[in-house]
Amino acid sequence: MKESETDVIETTLRNIRPVDETLYEVAQKHLDNLTKPPGSLGRLEEFARRLVAITKNRNPLLDKKVVFTFAGDHGVVQEGVSAYPKEVTTQMVFNFLRGGAGINVLARQAGAEVIVVDIGIDHDFGEVEGLMKMKVVRGTRNLLKGPAMTRRDALRCLDVGIKLANGYAKEGYTIFGTGDMGIGNTTPSSAIASVLTGRPVSEVTGKGTGISDESLQRKIRVIEDAIRFNKPDATDVVDVLSKVGGAEIGGIAGLILGAASNRIPVVIDGFISTAGALIAYGIEPKTKDYMFAAHNSVEIGHKAMLEKMGLKPILDLDLRLGEGTGAALAMMLIEAGLKIYREMATFGEAGVSDEIVN
Amino acid sequence: MKESETDVIETTLRNIRPVDETLYEVAQKHLDNLTKPPGSLGRLEEFARRLVAITKNRNPLLDKKVVFTFAGDHGVVQEGVSAYPKEVTTQMVFNFLRGGAGINVLARQAGAEVIVVDIGIDHDFGEVEGLMKMKVVRGTRNLLKGPAMTRRDALRCLDVGIKLANGYAKEGYTIFGTGDMGIGNTTPSSAIASVLTGRPVSEVTGKGTGISDESLQRKIRVIEDAIRFNKPDATDVVDVLSKVGGAEIGGIAGLILGAASNRIPVVIDGFISTAGALIAYGIEPKTKDYMFAAHNSVEIGHKAMLEKMGLKPILDLDLRLGEGTGAALAMMLIEAGLKIYREMATFGEAGVSDEIVN
Repeated sequence: MKESETDVIETTLRNIRPVDETLYEVAQKHLDNLTKPPGSLGRLEEFARRLVAITKNRNPLLDKKVVFTFAGDHGVVQEGVSAYPKEVTTQMVFNFLRGGAGINVLARQAGAEVIVVDIGIDHDFGEVEGLMKMKVVRGTRNLLKGPAMTRRDALRCLDVGIKLANGYAKEGYTIFGTGDMGIGNTTPSSAIASVLTGRPVSEVTGKGTGISDESLQRKIRVIEDAIRFNKPDATDVVDVLSKVGGAEIGGIAGLILGAASNRIPVVIDGFISTAGALIAYGIEPKTKDYMFAAHNSVEIGHKAMLEKMGLKPILDLDLRLGEGTGAALAMMLIEAGLKIYREMATFGEAGVSDEIVN
Repeated sequence: MKESETDVIETTLRNIRPVDETLYEVAQKHLDNLTKPPGSLGRLEEFARRLVAITKNRNPLLDKKVVFTFAGDHGVVQEGVSAYPKEVTTQMVFNFLRGGAGINVLARQAGAEVIVVDIGIDHDFGEVEGLMKMKVVRGTRNLLKGPAMTRRDALRCLDVGIKLANGYAKEGYTIFGTGDMGIGNTTPSSAIASVLTGRPVSEVTGKGTGISDESLQRKIRVIEDAIRFNKPDATDVVDVLSKVGGAEIGGIAGLILGAASNRIPVVIDGFISTAGALIAYGIEPKTKDYMFAAHNSVEIGHKAMLEKMGLKPILDLDLRLGEGTGAALAMMLIEAGLKIYREMATFGEAGVSDEIVN
């Protein structure tokens, strides 16, 4: 690396500006001139307004879409916190690359590419076509026994996400989605949720991929103990990310920072992605204006994180898969809002009366 | 007409069978074999299961999609119950036919055709390309002063919907969406909602396209008076449809009956479409198994109708446009569920472990 991670992050943060709120009104004015009662397309209109303000473009287009699925392993799986063995992270990466996973199916429907990023998998892939090799750690360490990552590695994870955002922005991509793969990663996500929302661990910890009640109790104890032992500093989100986080969560946070600095809308998937979003928001709260919350996950604790940032989810379909699946679905609805904005006829064009008579 | 409306309806009702519930399990078995934790795609899996059971096809396809936008006028607009003048119904029909309305934009995105049906517009269109001319009435009569339609006309509206369903089923269409256009049509819809759910008019009457508070109070009084005067019989939904309903609502009800009799899934749009669905449900409760409730409308009273049928809406995006816009959006999500079912790799194919370890 020519620049240090800190330099890249500093430059990125300097480039994150508030969105131009005057453009909300400009966009709404156009929306109110379309052949429908004012406001009658509800959140679709909100999506269109926000896209105009985010991109600073009065006629934006979402032609190049991409979902980034960040993958990493977690030392804490040793504690029996996940329903699946660690090997599944690697197996699923091959599934992604062959196009057979949920995210592949839904991204195809949404017209989005899927970029699979090895940011922290405990497997040596060698040369594998299509895999973005940006490994920072070979799995995190067991956060019950010490910090999951060094602070340096946490910063490198942010850096990976930022560089991906910068690269894809340069290639003309217009909307990003976040996604994750990592057996065990609801555990660090719940830890982050608890530390950054101030809620008790038991209120933000769920069954992830589907563990037993007994394993859930163990998972809660593991997270409580890990927080007690590592003492993450809630006022320093990089500290939280390094001590009780995960590599893919850091990559997602970096991607969001990079998206905001490039004025690119970013669709936040579910529970793990929202933990990443909370980290990005902790570093720079203005990132929130660039985020779309894809859905309301089944995983308890998701709502608390979304509320912390004041984000209202687009979908509520009882999803809990991750990978970016919710982001791909929500992208279709965000795009629907933009199509309304771009393609509907105005009252004048259509010869429709816009006179309100009662 | 060669057959009487009653014969067509009778034949249709005989053909509506309960969906084959054993197929829910067959479909879920396949879903549980896909590379994801069981149940983790929530309602997408529900959509897939239901499509299999509805179509009695273990590998259904949604390749030919169509949204029917039924249009009609309402004598009750004389009472000042709508924000817009009556002429807008006709103006919007021309907008639909030119592709400039909200439903055109969203149906294009969903890959669905839009069929615009004149079932009760108070305008003589003559020859207009693309318009389905199936006029039953030239606007309904003012329901404050007597029945909106004769019973015979109400049956003819059902018949129109059924015949459209039969025709499009024969042409190989695989999923239907409902839609409406009719200035004033939240008034009959609220009347139907009140009569068939038993709720007071004030609890199921909203601002429609956006009337003032004062006009809302007038609208509530009009509906209350109309129900008192016409005495619709809640145990005879055709009586309700004729006395306080509308032509497009009858067409939608007929389409749903026809969809169910042809084992075709039908996506119910918002408030007006759901009033039509309640009529269909009142005629044959088994129709419910063929319905997907697209969204939760802003219009109060919608929820009560959905609850009456036990339908859970797919989207909640503060929509209140009608036309079938919510149905087009929901179709994309229903199709997402089917794509998951058809396109995802199984654990065996992908070499992913499905062993639950905790």
